[in-house]
Amino acid sequence: MAKDFATREGDFPKWYNDIVIKADLAENSAVRGCMVIKPYGYSIWEKMQAALDKMFKDTGHLNAYFPLLIPKSFLSKEAAHIKGFAKECAVVTHYRLKTSDDGKGVVVDPTAKLEEELIIRPTSETIIWHSYKKWINSYRDLPLLINQWANIVRWEMRTRLFLRTTEFLWQEGHTAHATEAEALEETKKMLDVYTEFAETWMAMPVLKGLKSENERFAGAIDTYCIEALMQDGKSLQAGTSHFLGQNFAKAFDVKFTDKSGKQKFVWASSWGVSTRLIGALVMAHSDDNGLVLPPKLAPIQVVIIPIYTEKEQLDSISERVQIITDSLREKGISVKYDDRDTHKPGWKFNEYEFKGVPIRIAIGPRDMEAGTIELARRDTLEKNTYEWEEGVEKIPGILDDIQSNLYKRALKKREENTHEIETYDEFKKVLKEKGGFLMAHWDGTTETELKIKGDTKATIRCIPMEGDGKEGKCMVTGKPSKQKVVFAKAY
Amino acid sequence: MAKDFATREGDFPKWYNDIVIKADLAENSAVRGCMVIKPYGYSIWEKMQAALDKMFKDTGHLNAYFPLLIPKSFLSKEAAHIKGFAKECAVVTHYRLKTSDDGKGVVVDPTAKLEEELIIRPTSETIIWHSYKKWINSYRDLPLLINQWANIVRWEMRTRLFLRTTEFLWQEGHTAHATEAEALEETKKMLDVYTEFAETWMAMPVLKGLKSENERFAGAIDTYCIEALMQDGKSLQAGTSHFLGQNFAKAFDVKFTDKSGKQKFVWASSWGVSTRLIGALVMAHSDDNGLVLPPKLAPIQVVIIPIYTEKEQLDSISERVQIITDSLREKGISVKYDDRDTHKPGWKFNEYEFKGVPIRIAIGPRDMEAGTIELARRDTLEKNTYEWEEGVEKIPGILDDIQSNLYKRALKKREENTHEIETYDEFKKVLKEKGGFLMAHWDGTTETELKIKGDTKATIRCIPMEGDGKEGKCMVTGKPSKQKVVFAKAY
Repeated sequence: MAKDFATREGDFPKWYNDIVIKADLAENSAVRGCMVIKPYGYSIWEKMQAALDKMFKDTGHLNAYFPLLIPKSFLSKEAAHIKGFAKECAVVTHYRLKTSDDGKGVVVDPTAKLEEELIIRPTSETIIWHSYKKWINSYRDLPLLINQWANIVRWEMRTRLFLRTTEFLWQEGHTAHATEAEALEETKKMLDVYTEFAETWMAMPVLKGLKSENERFAGAIDTYCIEALMQDGKSLQAGTSHFLGQNFAKAFDVKFTDKSGKQKFVWASSWGVSTRLIGALVMAHSDDNGLVLPPKLAPIQVVIIPIYTEKEQLDSISERVQIITDSLREKGISVKYDDRDTHKPGWKFNEYEFKGVPIRIAIGPRDMEAGTIELARRDTLEKNTYEWEEGVEKIPGILDDIQSNLYKRALKKREENTHEIETYDEFKKVLKEKGGFLMAHWDGTTETELKIKGDTKATIRCIPMEGDGKEGKCMVTGKPSKQKVVFAKAY
Repeated sequence: MAKDFATREGDFPKWYNDIVIKADLAENSAVRGCMVIKPYGYSIWEKMQAALDKMFKDTGHLNAYFPLLIPKSFLSKEAAHIKGFAKECAVVTHYRLKTSDDGKGVVVDPTAKLEEELIIRPTSETIIWHSYKKWINSYRDLPLLINQWANIVRWEMRTRLFLRTTEFLWQEGHTAHATEAEALEETKKMLDVYTEFAETWMAMPVLKGLKSENERFAGAIDTYCIEALMQDGKSLQAGTSHFLGQNFAKAFDVKFTDKSGKQKFVWASSWGVSTRLIGALVMAHSDDNGLVLPPKLAPIQVVIIPIYTEKEQLDSISERVQIITDSLREKGISVKYDDRDTHKPGWKFNEYEFKGVPIRIAIGPRDMEAGTIELARRDTLEKNTYEWEEGVEKIPGILDDIQSNLYKRALKKREENTHEIETYDEFKKVLKEKGGFLMAHWDGTTETELKIKGDTKATIRCIPMEGDGKEGKCMVTGKPSKQKVVFAKAY
C-alpha cells in the first residue's frame, strides 16, 4: 500500500491527500468542494466531539440548535459581517421543482420563488442574535452560554479535504454577558479550552495569540486564535475565539435591564473549531508510512492480528485473543481483532500501520508455544516481544507514552522551526529556505502586513499572548514595535 | 404558570404548543417553518441520540457524513423518488452576494449562478448511492452498514413545532447487501431497534406494520413503520424502515462481484427517525400540568428545592443537599439543586412540574429537624415524606417505576382507544365520536383507501405485523381482505 504513496519530502500536498484518501478518512463528493467523511474519519470526529462537548458542558455551556437558513436581511445587519461573508454565500432562491415541459426531467419551478432569499449559514451569529433578543431581558438572563454543533457552507474557490471545504462540520459557541470584562474573560477561557484540547487530546502544541486587524473575524472587535505548525513549515489556524463587543447586540437591538434598572446592550463572544482539526491532526503527526494518530483520538487503539496456516492454530490463537480483548476493553481500550481470512498478515500489518493504529499485537504459533505476543508501536515503529500477560498489562502505559511522545515530538519540531528574525532580508531568506514560525517585529499597520504578504505570501498568524514582550523596530519600516509577532505561510 | 395554559380536553393543539413553548423545548424562528431547538429540548434530543447511536453501533453500523447539497440530476435518477420529493425542495441557485447598485444593501450576484442547481437534502439516498458506487465492488465490501446524523430540509406548507418543520434533525441509515433476504432482514431488524427504543426509552407503545402502497416512501419497495397513538386519538408515525429492493442500485449502477464471479445489483434498506420523536414524547405522556418525561430521557431526573427564610437555614440545607447530590450522581442520576434566591419555592415547584422533571425533592427547616425529605413524583403527582437517607436510597427504584408506569399508562390508553370495526357506518361513527386506532378490513386497493380518506380524513396507518391474521370482507367494497388493518387520523 505504501508503495504508490507520496512522501513528505517529495510532495507534501500529495502526501497529505494520499493519507486522507487511502486511510479512508474522507473523499471528494460529486458536489464541488464538498467532501464525504468516511466512517474511519468520522469516528475521529466523534471522539473530538465527545471530548470538546464535555469540556464545554464542564464550563457551563448548553447545546441548542438554530436554523440552517438565514434571511439575507439578517446577514446584512452587521456591516463588517456581511462584508466578510457576502462572497461565500450559498443562496436558496426557490422551494419547489416541477416536471420540465418536455416531461423528461425536473426544473426549478419559477412560481416557487422566495420573496426574500435565504442563505445557508456561513456562521450563525445573526440568526442566533435574532433569538437572543427574545431570550434576554434582564441581568437574570445573563450570562447566556450556548453552543451549537452544526454544518456550515462557505463557497470556497480552492478546496482541500478537511482543510478548506465548501461544507464542513463544526461547533460554534455564542455567549452573551452583562459586562465587557465578563465577555472578554469568556473569550479567553474558551481559547484555553481549545488549547487544552489541542495539546492534551490532539497531542499538538499550539501558540495562543491575537489576530491582527486584517485577519480578524468579520464582525469581531478582537479575534483570538490557536496556531499549530505543520510538518511542512506552514501554520494552521486550529481554533478561534472572538470578542464581539456590542456589535451584534447593537445590530439586533439586544438590551438587558441591569440591577439598577438601566437598559444596556449586552456583550458577546463567539468561538469555533471544525472538521479542519482532522486535517491538522494528519499533518501534525503522520509520517511516510501513513497516518499516525494520538491514542486518545484513535478509533482503534489496539489491533490484534493472528498469524497462522492451520485452522487449529487460529482457534487456539483466537481463544487467547478473547482473553486479551476482554481485559483491554475492561480498561476502556478500543480493540479490533482482525481474523479475516481474505487478507494475509503482511497486508494487514501495512493496512493498520497506514491507518495509524497506535499499537499492533501479532500472535503466531511460535508465540503460542512461548506464551508471548509481539507489540509494535506506530509512533516509533519499535517492536517488542513480551510474555503475553505482561504485554497486556503494559498497554495502557504504552498508549500514554505514545500520546506524550507525539506531543513532545511535535513540540520539538516546532521549536526547531521557530526562528528569531531581525531583518527583512533574513525574513525572506529563512522563509524561503526553512519556513516555520518567523518571530519578527512589525509596526502594527495593515499596510506593512499586506506588503509582507504581497512580497512573501507570509501572514501574521498571531500576536502571541505569551511572547517575550520586548520592544523593537519593525523589520520593514523601522517604526516602533511593542513585541515580536508570529509570521508564517498558512493553510 | 399553569394558569394561562390550555388543557388537552379544551384545545389539544394549543395544549401541545403551549407545552413546547412554555417548557422551553423549542420556538418558531424568523425563517418560515424552521424552529429553534432550545437547550432543554435539545438535551432530550441528545439523550435520544446517545441511546439510538449505541443501538446502531451494537448492531454493526458505522457513522459517516455525506454532503448537504445534492445535484438536481442525482435526485432525478430514481423516478418515484423525485416524484415524491420535487414539491418540497429548497433549491440553491447562486453562490455569492454583492453590494446592491445603490450601495445600501446586498443582492444576489447574478454572475454567480450555478450551472446545475443544488438541492438541500430532503433525504440522502441519492447522494449516498452515488458514493456507494465507488465503495462497492465485491461481495467482500458487503454488507455496508452506514448511519448518518444530519439536518434535512423539506419545504412543508403547514408546519408545527417538532411534528412537521421545514428543517429537522434526524438520523438516516443506508445499507447495502448481497441478497434480497439480507436486505429485508436488515429492514426489519432496524424496525425492531426503533420499537425497542420507543417502548424502552420513550415509554411509548408502538404498533409495527407495513405501509400501504399509497403511504410508502418514494423509491421504496416496502415501507415498514412504527405508529404510536397520541392522547387526542390521532396516530403519529414515529419511525420508518424501507426495503428499497434494487431501485437505487439500478439508478446509480451499483453492482458487486459475487463469490462465483458474477456481477449483480446490490439490495438496499434505509431507515430514519427524527426530532419529530420529541413531539411524540410530549403528546404521549404529558398532562394538564405540563410536560411529563420518562426518566430515561429527562435532562434533569431529580430536582431539589430548598425552603427557607434565613440564610443559616439555607446553609444547613445545602450541606445535606451536597451529600444527596453526590450520592445520586454516583448512581448516574442527573440532579439539579435550584437554590436561586430570585424565585420562591412555589414558583420553582410549578416550573419543574411544568418541565416534567420526574422527581422533586423539597427540604425545609422542619425536614432538617425531623431528618426527612419530601419526594414528589411527576407522573402521579403523589407526595411522600421519607427519612432522608431512606428517600435517597429509594430514588433509583422510583425512577424505574415512573418509567414503567408511563409505559403502562400509555398502553392502557391505546388499548382503550383501539376499536374493532365491522361496518363502514360504524367506522365513521367511532372515528367521529372516539377517534383512536380503528381495526377494519380493507380490500387492499389504493382506490378504496383514498375514498375512505376523502370521506373521513382517516388513513391506513399500517398493515400490522402482529395482527390476528383473520380474513374478512372490506368494510367499504365487500371484497375479500386478508387481515384487518389500522386506520386513524394522523399527524
